[in-house]
Amino acid sequence: MSADISVIGLGLMGAALAGALLDAGHRVTVWNRSADKAEPLVAKGATRAATVAEAVAASPLVIVCVLDYPAVYEVLADVPLEGRVVANLTTGRPVEAREAADWVTGRGGDYLDGGIMAVPQMIGRPGALVLYSGSRQAYDRFEAAFGALAGARYVGDDPGMAPLLDLAMLTGMYGQIAGFLEAVALVESAGYPLSEFTSTLLVPWLNAMAAGQPEWVQSIESGDYTTLVSNLEVNRAGLETLVRTFREQRVKPDLLLPMKTIIDQRTARGHATEGLPSLIEELR
Amino acid sequence: MSADISVIGLGLMGAALAGALLDAGHRVTVWNRSADKAEPLVAKGATRAATVAEAVAASPLVIVCVLDYPAVYEVLADVPLEGRVVANLTTGRPVEAREAADWVTGRGGDYLDGGIMAVPQMIGRPGALVLYSGSRQAYDRFEAAFGALAGARYVGDDPGMAPLLDLAMLTGMYGQIAGFLEAVALVESAGYPLSEFTSTLLVPWLNAMAAGQPEWVQSIESGDYTTLVSNLEVNRAGLETLVRTFREQRVKPDLLLPMKTIIDQRTARGHATEGLPSLIEELR
Ligand SMILES: NC(=O)c1ccc[n+]([C@@H]2O[C@H](COP(=O)([O-])OP(=O)(O)OC[C@H]3O[C@@H](n4cnc5c(N)ncnc54)[C@H](OP(=O)(O)O)[C@@H]3O)[C@@H](O)[C@H]2O)c1
Ligand SMILES: NC(=O)c1ccc[n+]([C@@H]2O[C@H](COP(=O)([O-])OP(=O)(O)OC[C@H]3O[C@@H](n4cnc5c(N)ncnc54)[C@H](OP(=O)(O)O)[C@@H]3O)[C@@H](O)[C@H]2O)c1
Repeated sequence: MSADISVIGLGLMGAALAGALLDAGHRVTVWNRSADKAEPLVAKGATRAATVAEAVAASPLVIVCVLDYPAVYEVLADVPLEGRVVANLTTGRPVEAREAADWVTGRGGDYLDGGIMAVPQMIGRPGALVLYSGSRQAYDRFEAAFGALAGARYVGDDPGMAPLLDLAMLTGMYGQIAGFLEAVALVESAGYPLSEFTSTLLVPWLNAMAAGQPEWVQSIESGDYTTLVSNLEVNRAGLETLVRTFREQRVKPDLLLPMKTIIDQRTARGHATEGLPSLIEELR
Repeated sequence: MSADISVIGLGLMGAALAGALLDAGHRVTVWNRSADKAEPLVAKGATRAATVAEAVAASPLVIVCVLDYPAVYEVLADVPLEGRVVANLTTGRPVEAREAADWVTGRGGDYLDGGIMAVPQMIGRPGALVLYSGSRQAYDRFEAAFGALAGARYVGDDPGMAPLLDLAMLTGMYGQIAGFLEAVALVESAGYPLSEFTSTLLVPWLNAMAAGQPEWVQSIESGDYTTLVSNLEVNRAGLETLVRTFREQRVKPDLLLPMKTIIDQRTARGHATEGLPSLIEELR
């Protein structure tokens, strides 16, 4: 079933979103501050709105994807939002999403926030994911349209939840990247082929380790940090060996050091026999 | 084909190794400083040696798995090693492995170092991996026996290579753990179910990201840090959003901070338009 959808903001991401909606057969109205970016989409069948107000008036669903939240307010200022669903896919912090939700609902609109877990090239293809939070009713009404952009998942009525989970996934990714970079720098220092190390040793190992994380969650949720595998004392010694090896190989262990610090700290506080999940207590 | 193999050191790991060799039908001689730890293995068919020298004399392959390298020297001091292959699976640093190789070969033995990527419970089961480095001839001669312990992989004649790759895999793991802990602490602060986040969002996302690492290696090996996805400036802004969100949610971002520092540093040095793999230059 095709819907009327407006897309405001036609940067790399907004253009990809509008393109995927056109591909899925929706009637798409577009607006961008620099008007020329609308051209390729108009050539694909989109309608160009002359003003933001015209774009908002054209469709019950208005997708906004601009640089940041200040740009969202700049774009939507003085535009009537009654009866519109504003799906804001601009990246931001949970507090910004909550403020924007209040602002939009205060003007009679319904608000959804979205966290895009994909690069523009992935939009409309398998593997892309967008998390939505805010108005459940708005999500249910347009779920099919959202499905044309990426896998769509509603994560709760707190508008800040989608950006928070988005940021949490990025957090996990940055940790993995930090470990990857340090591991590769160490292997490079010894002259072992990096691609062989990464493809046949590191990646399978990380996948096996990631598969164990749901068990860690049980430990964290229960507060029972008993372990049958390596406890904090064993890991403390392991990190010491590691950091010493980095120095001997003349590689900087900077990205690894806070892990050492936190394990030292937790061990010093009397938790040497607990498992690694107990480190979460030092972050709360 | 069954072989004569001696195992020295029957802690949690040594006992698991000896047990797996017995299960595979090898003739196993065992020795441990505290003699009582040999009992369950003798009950399974192992021969107990009264002294280390007796254990070493009993088999052409001598597997050593004790606490650390000082313990290795303490155990093997004054024991004739002519014609023996010493496979030292004690965890240590690459420099310690190289020293031990010199020490053993200086006494007429052949040396292999091993890095065990498994907990004792996994020994003899699918998924366990042991890396070996040092004498290629020694490895080839006993490869079948090593296969009874875990997947066996020879990684080169530098005896330090197995421990180095072992440590590099642990490095990658600690990064992933750091990211996991921070991500979970953030999600916990917002009250989203941790197990749902971990199983259905984080783990699939990390696996997808890990699959991209071989491409990063190409970038690192070529020194061409051009990127079609997010460059360092975009990531710099992302980390700023992240760290601010951690503070707003009252979660400590300690394990994430060095990633922010290194991206800030690399950006400040004029590499804002390069991709994340370029960060490796800051670690060299
Ligand atoms: N690209 C990605 O990989 C990716 C992934 C996930 C999420 N996102 C998020 O998607 C959003 C857009 O990213 P992008 O990649 O499309 O960025 P982009 O290519 O730089 O486009 C930025 C867009 O914001 C508009 N804009 C900026 N300031 C404005 C203002 N004051 N008033 C009106 N419009 C303004 C720009 O309009 P002009 O054309 O007139 O400059 C342009 O349409 C960001 O929040 C980003 O974090 C991007
Ligand atoms: N457990 C794991 O998950 C794991 C994983 C990978 C690698 N490893 C490595 O495997 C090695 C052994 O670990 P483990 O788990 O078996 O440790 P463990 O259970 O603590 O056993 C330590 C062993 O070392 C012996 N030992 C210590 N100091 C000695 C000395 N001065 N002289 C003679 N023997 C001495 C102990 O003898 P007594 O019984 O007489 O004390 C015992 O056999 C370590 O290098 C460890 O890093 C372990």
